[in-house]
Amino acid sequence: MRGRGDRLEVALVDRGLDRMLVTDLTNVRYLTGFTGTNGAAICGPGVRLFLTDFRYTERAEAEVPEWETITVTGDWLGGIAERLAGKVGFEDDHVSVRTLAKLEEKLPDEVEAVAAGGAVEALRRVKDDAELAAIEAAAQLADAALQETVEEGFAGRTERAVADAFEARVRAAGAELSFETIVAAGPNGAQPHAEPGPRVIERGELVVFDYGAKLDGYCSDGTRTYATGDPGEEGRAVYETVLAAQAAALAAIRPGEKGEDVDAAGRKVIDDAGHAEHFGHGLGHGVGLDIHEGPRLSPRSDDLLARNEVITVEPGIYLAGNLGVRIEDLVVVTADGLRNLSSLPKDLTYVD
Amino acid sequence: MRGRGDRLEVALVDRGLDRMLVTDLTNVRYLTGFTGTNGAAICGPGVRLFLTDFRYTERAEAEVPEWETITVTGDWLGGIAERLAGKVGFEDDHVSVRTLAKLEEKLPDEVEAVAAGGAVEALRRVKDDAELAAIEAAAQLADAALQETVEEGFAGRTERAVADAFEARVRAAGAELSFETIVAAGPNGAQPHAEPGPRVIERGELVVFDYGAKLDGYCSDGTRTYATGDPGEEGRAVYETVLAAQAAALAAIRPGEKGEDVDAAGRKVIDDAGHAEHFGHGLGHGVGLDIHEGPRLSPRSDDLLARNEVITVEPGIYLAGNLGVRIEDLVVVTADGLRNLSSLPKDLTYVD
Repeated sequence: MRGRGDRLEVALVDRGLDRMLVTDLTNVRYLTGFTGTNGAAICGPGVRLFLTDFRYTERAEAEVPEWETITVTGDWLGGIAERLAGKVGFEDDHVSVRTLAKLEEKLPDEVEAVAAGGAVEALRRVKDDAELAAIEAAAQLADAALQETVEEGFAGRTERAVADAFEARVRAAGAELSFETIVAAGPNGAQPHAEPGPRVIERGELVVFDYGAKLDGYCSDGTRTYATGDPGEEGRAVYETVLAAQAAALAAIRPGEKGEDVDAAGRKVIDDAGHAEHFGHGLGHGVGLDIHEGPRLSPRSDDLLARNEVITVEPGIYLAGNLGVRIEDLVVVTADGLRNLSSLPKDLTYVD
Repeated sequence: MRGRGDRLEVALVDRGLDRMLVTDLTNVRYLTGFTGTNGAAICGPGVRLFLTDFRYTERAEAEVPEWETITVTGDWLGGIAERLAGKVGFEDDHVSVRTLAKLEEKLPDEVEAVAAGGAVEALRRVKDDAELAAIEAAAQLADAALQETVEEGFAGRTERAVADAFEARVRAAGAELSFETIVAAGPNGAQPHAEPGPRVIERGELVVFDYGAKLDGYCSDGTRTYATGDPGEEGRAVYETVLAAQAAALAAIRPGEKGEDVDAAGRKVIDDAGHAEHFGHGLGHGVGLDIHEGPRLSPRSDDLLARNEVITVEPGIYLAGNLGVRIEDLVVVTADGLRNLSSLPKDLTYVD
């Protein structure tokens, strides 16, 4: 966590703020290291306060060495309000309308709450070495779990059973899931966010496998689409189009590139193949403590890529009632391009 | 889901509203049956609209038969705004300050957004038969998983290993966890929300085991405190105090009783034993689609209990650096008292 409060202090002073109140728990964890379910951070010039309640006093002593820990008893918002001063940025993208109204009732007259959401998220986009190591370890663990699951074969098993086999391996390796695994075979693959169901995977189907592990709070994210025998001419053609789209997008990644331009590089390949209306989501997103964070790769993203951002590149084509293909890598933006954290092959792979 | 939209319609008309916009995903699920990650419901006299995006169009057709499903493409908040009319209640306890500001920009002039959070949560407190069956099944499944785990013994294993053994059983039985299991031995038991760690459970310790399963979206919640051999005079005395406090609280439960009075019935036993300052949380809470929902049993709760509410009763005593005891049952409020969904014994149980 070292230095993160300092970076936030610079950012809030740049915005003309005296304090920043951070209440989103993922942002609180990023800044302070706290992993419990009730905490808030107040940052300002020379000010590093971490507030929690009695349930977490002991944990905070272990997890939050660099911030002054205060245990609030009773009135939580009152305990926060009395420690604010001047112009206070709050996370308007996380704080509810009701919570802000209650907080404002308790603020001293001279304190002003100012919408300042996204300040910590902006810091979180660029990963430090420890974060990169955690994400890479999660990706390796997830890839190993998937490879072992693939070797058991898919055909004749239900989507749910295959997903369970993967998830059990992730947990046995000491990790959590970064999201609910997607195993979507045949027509189910046309739903980008399908849940694995009781449907038995048949021969000659395409199987979308979207998977991730979480280690030390950090997520991995990846997708492979496998074939349980020849998926037919259309299936093969769609697969090759998605693979080519991903290659084009990966080739476009470097610092300074705009999210919409990387998206366009991949999307053009899909559009040119006549599938423009079958790729209804963005090309990719940042990954870290959250499975979805900045930067965004999408048709309307003006995010500029920077070194040590970790992003997914995941074009897909979805033909309703028929099939779906998605291929997703997790990459680190480097000085001259990217480093790919996904290790599994991408040529169309046949599994039993 | 049948009839839930009708109950909401009655409630919103009572509040003088023309429409209710429901965006909290748990509330959306409760009303419509939708289990995806992006959806909103608009309810009004004769109006039952469910909005989602293209990723979930297919799922919505399967899950949301009773509401008219609309797939919004592009501008999500705009798609919502154009379907609102008159005085529109919104969930001010869930909607962020930023989202409300963006929504209000898109609202027609004659449409007014009014804070109306809690409307769906109020409906959710009282469970219907299908909900009660799901919660009871989850509780039975969790109890069976815990009993099997207890029979393997605790001493010599880490907290984490014991928690893993329980969680694997829950998943093998086809359920999810309703929260991260707590296994907290010896001094760790003094942290009400301890995470199971690498500490090896020793002989003669008290072990707090807080556990739950989720089936069909519905949670169970329970806690038992076991002893790996004689926990000593203080441990035994604390255990008996907590057990007596729970019995007193259970005896106070019936429709019309106030949350603070039930809390007080249990808390008095703990106070009288000299442990007032060692019981720093509320006595209990409602359970359903969320692990924590209404009604609340706490020193400041004016919630009135009603038939078919499902609540926890979970007094505890926490002696920092030393030990903790919590005993928690999950009960249904009935016409003349309660029906206890927790099946495991509560006399101090010695495990290996």
